[in-house]
Amino acid sequence: MSLHAIYFPHLAAASGPITIQGEEAHHALRVKRLEIGDEVRLLDGRGTVVAARLASSRKVRGEWEVEIEILSTRRVEPAKPRLTVLSAAPKGERLDALIDGLSQAGAAAWGLLQTDRTVVEPRQGKLGRLERIAVEAMKQCGRAWMLEIGEPVAFEEALNRLGRVVIADGSGGPYQSSGESDVALLVGPEGGWSEKELTRARAKGVQAASFGPHVMRIETAAVVGAGVVMQATTRP
Amino acid sequence: MSLHAIYFPHLAAASGPITIQGEEAHHALRVKRLEIGDEVRLLDGRGTVVAARLASSRKVRGEWEVEIEILSTRRVEPAKPRLTVLSAAPKGERLDALIDGLSQAGAAAWGLLQTDRTVVEPRQGKLGRLERIAVEAMKQCGRAWMLEIGEPVAFEEALNRLGRVVIADGSGGPYQSSGESDVALLVGPEGGWSEKELTRARAKGVQAASFGPHVMRIETAAVVGAGVVMQATTRP
Repeated sequence: MSLHAIYFPHLAAASGPITIQGEEAHHALRVKRLEIGDEVRLLDGRGTVVAARLASSRKVRGEWEVEIEILSTRRVEPAKPRLTVLSAAPKGERLDALIDGLSQAGAAAWGLLQTDRTVVEPRQGKLGRLERIAVEAMKQCGRAWMLEIGEPVAFEEALNRLGRVVIADGSGGPYQSSGESDVALLVGPEGGWSEKELTRARAKGVQAASFGPHVMRIETAAVVGAGVVMQATTRP
Repeated sequence: MSLHAIYFPHLAAASGPITIQGEEAHHALRVKRLEIGDEVRLLDGRGTVVAARLASSRKVRGEWEVEIEILSTRRVEPAKPRLTVLSAAPKGERLDALIDGLSQAGAAAWGLLQTDRTVVEPRQGKLGRLERIAVEAMKQCGRAWMLEIGEPVAFEEALNRLGRVVIADGSGGPYQSSGESDVALLVGPEGGWSEKELTRARAKGVQAASFGPHVMRIETAAVVGAGVVMQATTRP
């Protein structure tokens, strides 16, 4: 139904035909078995969407390379509001599921939140690999902007973000939008927020919101929370 | 923080001490390493929550068995609204993630929805195994009612359910609650609804609702949709 998507970060600077190499070229030719003349969609993950066509392919030093002819280019606005989810990191594959789910639910960015009870501190290599998951999720769910993977953020710093800041906590009422354009949603670790963190949040006037009747794991709270925030703000 | 939870489906009929056998007994004694005198929480998955204490344990024919003394019993009301999610089945472990996520988000029941473009038809054994996932999710997320795993439902039958029926589709606006106590949320297969299905839904006056700006996989749409429906109805 939808065209095969290829990630090419340098689209904005491109003029004339584009040469795709490496994993994206291999995937298009050998896994998806696209042929010369087939149409594809190019994404730079920053709002540029290009309709294009496979013009030629060749193997260079054992690696596939494909030349792509640009048919038309359009710019897509990012989803509103601009939602940043800052969360503790769940273990292993659940962090991958979080990035994938946030991409589908429409968050703009994710960052690791450092909290008093944070246990899992993913290594730098792991955080780098999340970008690859964000790219794949973008292609699958039809986003033009990939989920940004930000730098780790301390709790206190997160409370001071510009725009609306909300902490996910069972003590809060349902989330309600005031039509703000920037929202930061803070999701705590498995052990919950410390008393000190809740006190700091209250002192800063940061509201708590509850996203359901039960206890949710980090990745579920983040994805459901993102869905609720995105929906609340588009409420007519 | 929260007490170890043990699933015991026959709680309502219990008077006096309870004997737990099999996997639950093994898990409490050997995995969680609970000791005599430790407090536990018993759940029947139907709203009964019992505070109890380990009274004794023994091995019978190579299997662990534990006797539990009831301290107090309370009844918990199910979450409102009563939300049933009917969806196509995603493949493999993604169906497990769906059951787990719906449990956390607060849905009351899930059933397999048969649609024109349904590809995956889980075997009966698979559907049986989902109950085990619902039990584990209930224990983890503090539910007193386990997610019910219902019988497969045909699309036409789903449209005729009592209460409010909503289909998840990008064509709809944001979900809005009218305070109904029963909601059925229909989530289609990866290929989307057929034109015939959308026409039938319109003819029945069934509304479409969109749960985000992007395309979501079945399990993400189901869990985010459940979160949004549960939240919209608790909106003050």
